[in-house]
Amino acid sequence: MRNFKIIIQYEGTRYQGWQRQESTCNTIQGKFEAILGKMTGQKMVQVDGSGRTDAGVHAYGQVANFKIDTDKTPEEVMDYINQYLPEDIAVISIEQMHERFHSRLNAKEKTYCYRIWNSPLRNVFERKYVYELSERLDIEAMKDAAQYFVGKHDFKAFTSNKKSKKSTVRTIYSIDIDYSETKEGYKDITITYNGDGFLYHMVRILTGTLIEVGLGQRKPEEMKKLFENATRDMAGALAPAKGLCLMEVRY
Amino acid sequence: MRNFKIIIQYEGTRYQGWQRQESTCNTIQGKFEAILGKMTGQKMVQVDGSGRTDAGVHAYGQVANFKIDTDKTPEEVMDYINQYLPEDIAVISIEQMHERFHSRLNAKEKTYCYRIWNSPLRNVFERKYVYELSERLDIEAMKDAAQYFVGKHDFKAFTSNKKSKKSTVRTIYSIDIDYSETKEGYKDITITYNGDGFLYHMVRILTGTLIEVGLGQRKPEEMKKLFENATRDMAGALAPAKGLCLMEVRY
Repeated sequence: MRNFKIIIQYEGTRYQGWQRQESTCNTIQGKFEAILGKMTGQKMVQVDGSGRTDAGVHAYGQVANFKIDTDKTPEEVMDYINQYLPEDIAVISIEQMHERFHSRLNAKEKTYCYRIWNSPLRNVFERKYVYELSERLDIEAMKDAAQYFVGKHDFKAFTSNKKSKKSTVRTIYSIDIDYSETKEGYKDITITYNGDGFLYHMVRILTGTLIEVGLGQRKPEEMKKLFENATRDMAGALAPAKGLCLMEVRY
Repeated sequence: MRNFKIIIQYEGTRYQGWQRQESTCNTIQGKFEAILGKMTGQKMVQVDGSGRTDAGVHAYGQVANFKIDTDKTPEEVMDYINQYLPEDIAVISIEQMHERFHSRLNAKEKTYCYRIWNSPLRNVFERKYVYELSERLDIEAMKDAAQYFVGKHDFKAFTSNKKSKKSTVRTIYSIDIDYSETKEGYKDITITYNGDGFLYHMVRILTGTLIEVGLGQRKPEEMKKLFENATRDMAGALAPAKGLCLMEVRY
């Protein structure tokens, strides 16, 4: 069996997220497994992603790997998959790896971007990739607040997954908040999160919390109280999926 | 009656172009006229655009005007329209003009952009706004060819409208070809056309001709032969609608 690593892009709008589900075939993982099953004739090809993305979340550089028995070159495998993928999913690179490579277990660092279109006007062209928010955000306050999240912390207040007994400690290396501005003064804000890994819903809850700071509903220094014994209800709302994009996974 | 000028954005994918048609209500003009009819109670509000855009063509700055009898402020008119528009159309500004202002007759200059994604890989996120072309284009040759089109010429070989007895002379002020490049060497090419006006299909046929130069099927200096007594069959193919966007109209 040969082990292939692929880098994938998708617009998440139409999908029920990354993870295969019994009740729907409309998942990214499900699409890949169906195509590779067809290509190889294997009953079940398991395609492991670097992590699950939620329904509606996009990916510019999701990484996955799978083991198959084939005579094709890596480029032929990639062409075959792309030929059967719909127009909102694409494999952009492929590489044969050693047999122990695993896209999730070996991931060292991930980058996510969250985009906010901060304007009373809708964004016709980018509407599927941005969260549209009309009230003006105080970006400096958001930057101040974001710095409290950087570092190694217990982020259990920032996940929707209550049952897991696994560690909720993660390290965020950086959070950068940048924006471009239209001549009318509307801002296209991008929050870039860089860390060793993120819990279920973590980036969206961090973003929801930063938005509440930007709206003046919380003060930056209040972020300190959201670690240690904090609970989910103390952190901010879950920001909408469509503003989120998994940019890159590093190994 | 008050005369309002509006600037409009739309993603043209779902529409049969700008112009109202009897057989379909799915036109941009038709959407506006229906909303304004509802708002004013007038039987027929005519919304004049600066020009028709074809089915599938986008607009970042289309201009239109209409005359209505209303007590609303311009901002209230804009908010009313935006409230009833679908998410792929928006009014981004409004201004009350003198009664003789006409968006088409008074237009002095227009800018169109045509985008080509020059890569063997699909473009997942921008796929509705770019023409995807896998064969590598010679951009320097395209730039050389474009310079022959700049200036005042008879562009009758560059329009699909055979019947019109109107003048086919137009002045192109500039054609700029720029691109950004991914790390894999794929180019996102934008051709920007600036002129006093463009004939039916003219930008798409100019683009189709430049693409044939970029593919090595024509030489830049052959462009000289496409004026004067040239006919439509001597110019290049009609480039696909989805790469085209009306950027700005100046008065």
